Amino acid sequence: MAEHLFLKACRREPVERTPMWMMRQAGRYMHEYRAIRKKVSFLELCKTPELACEVTMQPINEFGFDAAILFCDILVPLESMGLQVDFTPAPVLPNPVRDRAGVMALKIPDPEQEMPYVFEAIRKIRTALDNRVPLIGFAGAPFTMATYAVEGGGSKSYEKTKSLLFSDPETGHELLDRLARVTAVYLEAQVAAGAQCVQLFDSWAGILSPGDFSEFALRHANSAIEMLKDSATYKESPVPVIYFANGCAPYLQRLRESKADVLGVDWKIDLSTAWDALGDKYALQGNLDPTCLFMPEDALRARVKEVLDGAGNRPGHIFNLGHGILPSTDRERVRFLVNTVKELSAR
Amino acid sequence: MAEHLFLKACRREPVERTPMWMMRQAGRYMHEYRAIRKKVSFLELCKTPELACEVTMQPINEFGFDAAILFCDILVPLESMGLQVDFTPAPVLPNPVRDRAGVMALKIPDPEQEMPYVFEAIRKIRTALDNRVPLIGFAGAPFTMATYAVEGGGSKSYEKTKSLLFSDPETGHELLDRLARVTAVYLEAQVAAGAQCVQLFDSWAGILSPGDFSEFALRHANSAIEMLKDSATYKESPVPVIYFANGCAPYLQRLRESKADVLGVDWKIDLSTAWDALGDKYALQGNLDPTCLFMPEDALRARVKEVLDGAGNRPGHIFNLGHGILPSTDRERVRFLVNTVKELSAR
Repeated sequence: MAEHLFLKACRREPVERTPMWMMRQAGRYMHEYRAIRKKVSFLELCKTPELACEVTMQPINEFGFDAAILFCDILVPLESMGLQVDFTPAPVLPNPVRDRAGVMALKIPDPEQEMPYVFEAIRKIRTALDNRVPLIGFAGAPFTMATYAVEGGGSKSYEKTKSLLFSDPETGHELLDRLARVTAVYLEAQVAAGAQCVQLFDSWAGILSPGDFSEFALRHANSAIEMLKDSATYKESPVPVIYFANGCAPYLQRLRESKADVLGVDWKIDLSTAWDALGDKYALQGNLDPTCLFMPEDALRARVKEVLDGAGNRPGHIFNLGHGILPSTDRERVRFLVNTVKELSAR
Repeated sequence: MAEHLFLKACRREPVERTPMWMMRQAGRYMHEYRAIRKKVSFLELCKTPELACEVTMQPINEFGFDAAILFCDILVPLESMGLQVDFTPAPVLPNPVRDRAGVMALKIPDPEQEMPYVFEAIRKIRTALDNRVPLIGFAGAPFTMATYAVEGGGSKSYEKTKSLLFSDPETGHELLDRLARVTAVYLEAQVAAGAQCVQLFDSWAGILSPGDFSEFALRHANSAIEMLKDSATYKESPVPVIYFANGCAPYLQRLRESKADVLGVDWKIDLSTAWDALGDKYALQGNLDPTCLFMPEDALRARVKEVLDGAGNRPGHIFNLGHGILPSTDRERVRFLVNTVKELSAR
C-alpha cells in the first residue's frame, strides 16, 4: 500500500503533490461541529471519544484534507497534573502556579490512567479513518503550557510567567522540566494508541526575546521531543514530530537546533526566507494567513500560489494555515482552498 | 547651549552616554499618576492641558529621563474624523468603519480647531520643561489607526480589518490614505506647537505577512512621514521622526525603505541583528523586554548591558523598552534602570 502523502512530506520524500491540512480544521466554521457543540460543552466534547472522533472526521469527510488531527485541547494534561481548568469559554485556571511550592506539587501523571478518553478517541479515529489519511496527535509545548499554568489563563503581557522565570529561574526550569516530562509521556501514549505523527504547539513562544526563546521555550520543547524519541514506543513506531513555534520569524537561527522533524511556520515570514535560514534539515509546514480565506477566490488563489512558490521545488512542504482557521470563515472558501492547493501543487 | 543628548542620538551624532526614555513613562506604575486618575477619566486627562502637562512631567522630575513624551492617546484624532471613541477602559468605537460609505464619510480635520487641547498641552509642557530635555510628540500610524477604526476596538485576529483590506483593497487604501493625511497634519501641528521629535506608533503592524506589511503598513506610514517632511512647518523646524513598528523582526529588509530617521525596535530581536539588517541609515531605539523590570537588580543590570552591547559603538542608539512599561512595575526598578543605563553607557 502506498505511503500517505503527508507522512512522505514529513520525511522530505518526493510527493506527487503538496499535502495539506489546517490547524483547527475541526471547528466552529463547520455547521456540523456547531450542531454537536449545542449539545455538549467544549470539555465534554474533548472527553467523549465518540464525539471527539465524530468532529475529527467531519472535515476529512467534507473537504478531503490529507491528514486528520485529534480533537482535544492542549490544557487537558494540566488537569491531570493537579490543576483545575475551566472553559468560560476562554480557559481559566482558578489556582495558578506562582511559586516553588506550587511547582513541586505538580504531578507527573500516568496518561492512560488519567486521560483514557484521549487514547480511546485516537483508537476510534484510526478505525473511522480506515487508513484513508494519517492521524496527527498533539500536545502543548512546555513553555506555552507554563504560561497557562502561571497566568491562570490567557494574557496580554505574560508578566506573571516572565516574572517567575526571570526572578526565580530555578523554579521556572523545574516547572518547564515537569511539563516537558508530562508532554513526553502524553505524546508517547498517543503514539502507542495509534497517532501517526505528533505536533507540539508552542503558541506563545513568540513573546520572548531570542535568548529567552532558546532558554525557556526551545530547550524544553527539545527535551520533550528527546524523551519521546528515546522511548520504547517511539523506537518501535517512529513518527514525525512537528514543532510549531508561533511567531518564529525572530528565532530562525535558533530553530536550527530543534529536535523536531518538521517545523511549523506562521504567516509573518515568507516561506522561502524561513527555508533559506533553516537549511535542508527540516520539512516545513505552513503558512497562509488564515484571514486570506476572506479574500475573493482569485486573490486567494494568488496567495496560495505565493506560498507554494515560496516552497519551490524543495522536498518536505506541508501546506497549512499559519495559525488556526477563524470561526467566521466561509466553508466554501475552505473547499476552494483545498482544491486549489491540490491543483496548483500537482507535479 | 549644548544640544540635547536625545536629539543628537536621533541624528546619529556622537554622544557622551546613551540617552533613554520609556514608552508609557507617564503611567500607572507611578502613584502620582494614579492619584490624578482617581480624579479624572483617562479621556479627561488627555483633554485637560494642565493635567496632561502634569503627568508628562512626573517621570521627568522623578527619574531623570532624557526625553519627555506628550501624554495623550493615539485614538484622539479618530474622534476628530467623526468616529466616537469610548474608553471602558479598553477603547471601544461603537460605530466602526466597515465599508466604502463609512470610509468616505471620514473627515480630514483641522487639528488646531478640533484638538486644541493637544497643542495647548504641548506649549505648557515646553514651558514646564524649560529646555531641560526635549519633548516628543506622537501619533498612531495609519495601519494601526485603521485596525481600531474597523474592528471598533482591540482584536485578537484583526479579521475585520484584514477582510476589508483583502476583499476591497481600493477602499482599504482610501481609508489608510485618509488616516495618513490626518496623521501628517496632526504631527505638523504638534511640531508647530513645540514638539521637538515625533514618534509614529504602528502597534499592530506585526500581525501582517511581510508583503502585507509593505503594502498596508509601511507604505502609508511613509506617506504620512513624507507629507510631514514636505510641510512648511517641518522645513522651518525639522525634527527627527521615529517609526515604531511593533513586532518588526520579520520586516527588517522592508524597513530599509522607511522614511523615518529613527526606527523603534521591540525586544523580540537582538539589537545587533536588527542593526546589521537595517544598515547605517537609521538611529535605533530600544529594546529591553519590559518584563525584565521584574528581575532582581543584578539580572536586570546584565540585560541592560546586553542591550547596550548590542548597540556596540554604533552612533544613534536611544535606550528604551521594547514596548510600554507595565503598570505593575516597581518604580524603584525604574530608577535603577535609568541610573544603570546612564552608568553603563558612559563613554
